[in-house]
Amino acid sequence: MFSGAQISLYPMTGDFVGVIMSALGALDPYRDRLRIETDDISTLLVGPPEVLFPALRDLFTSAARTGVHCVLSAAISRGCPGEPDDAICQSTHFAGTMPPLAERQALALAAVEDAPKLDVFSVAQLSLYVMGEDRHMDEIYGCIDFLKSSGIFEKSKHFATKLRGDTGALFATLEQAFCRFGPPGGHVTIDLTVSANSPSPG
Amino acid sequence: MFSGAQISLYPMTGDFVGVIMSALGALDPYRDRLRIETDDISTLLVGPPEVLFPALRDLFTSAARTGVHCVLSAAISRGCPGEPDDAICQSTHFAGTMPPLAERQALALAAVEDAPKLDVFSVAQLSLYVMGEDRHMDEIYGCIDFLKSSGIFEKSKHFATKLRGDTGALFATLEQAFCRFGPPGGHVTIDLTVSANSPSPG
Repeated sequence: MFSGAQISLYPMTGDFVGVIMSALGALDPYRDRLRIETDDISTLLVGPPEVLFPALRDLFTSAARTGVHCVLSAAISRGCPGEPDDAICQSTHFAGTMPPLAERQALALAAVEDAPKLDVFSVAQLSLYVMGEDRHMDEIYGCIDFLKSSGIFEKSKHFATKLRGDTGALFATLEQAFCRFGPPGGHVTIDLTVSANSPSPG
Repeated sequence: MFSGAQISLYPMTGDFVGVIMSALGALDPYRDRLRIETDDISTLLVGPPEVLFPALRDLFTSAARTGVHCVLSAAISRGCPGEPDDAICQSTHFAGTMPPLAERQALALAAVEDAPKLDVFSVAQLSLYVMGEDRHMDEIYGCIDFLKSSGIFEKSKHFATKLRGDTGALFATLEQAFCRFGPPGGHVTIDLTVSANSPSPG
């Protein structure tokens, strides 16, 4: 199943190119397991979720550690029927059948408990979209229930759920939201914003 | 039908607060027709597409005219079954039945031809998601065909379509993509990025 993301990093500083170029070093440990292509609006990362989310985490954490107000924006997708399969996307996440919702929520929570603590605080906002299903809201509500008990839930908003916490727990939670909800072979996407060092009151 | 967006404006400058505060004046002509709420990660705009897209256009165009590299990111949504209806969202876009795809594509192209020219160039990337449908890709492919003939199509990418052109034509095209594809009462979203003044080669 084809999976990956179109991502962009926005450092709110005149030296945005310097912050981006420096943060890109955080992707080095992942480069042999991702296909990476950049143009003037976003960078494509093709690969399995277990590589993609830690890579996004380390990229964003590196930029956030500069203290500059930084935002990562990503369109994350799996199982789009219009995309060709790619061997680099092979994932342990989608093997076998789909357990009942409660079991998936418990597995997701257990995975978040194992997340590393990175001592970088950030906020995130995500919308999960499940396509090709008559009852797509059941999976979306199931994901929102998981997010509410993740330990980093901040609030429900129109069109999105907001999280806040350590970037380790945050990206582990995002990976679970992306992988555990919607059918294993289904077309699922996340519209994601992650922000650190904002001067606005939270 | 409830409709609106969570939006964020990212000026890549140390004076990002100044650029944002100045650009917000462009929303003034729309404020009585939108519900607006801001927190530290995004601004909620609730209202019909015929108000929302011109408001986004004028906000982004105002920021882009500073010459600073600016990005607008938006999660745009209509018809989410989990959202309550709101009288402010009443729209002329979704009355009556859904014409055949070819007719909708022709209407969309005609609307783009009437777009104002604003003499501000930008690039945009969008992903259209249609939910609650077995054959959701038919509508997505129909929208991509419209985008390819819009006059501002740049290229197809994994997970997204990239446009480039005048911000007048660009936001008119986005409004048509959002309104003409997927059922009139359906759950449809767009994950949108618009960028101006990037130093990266296009």
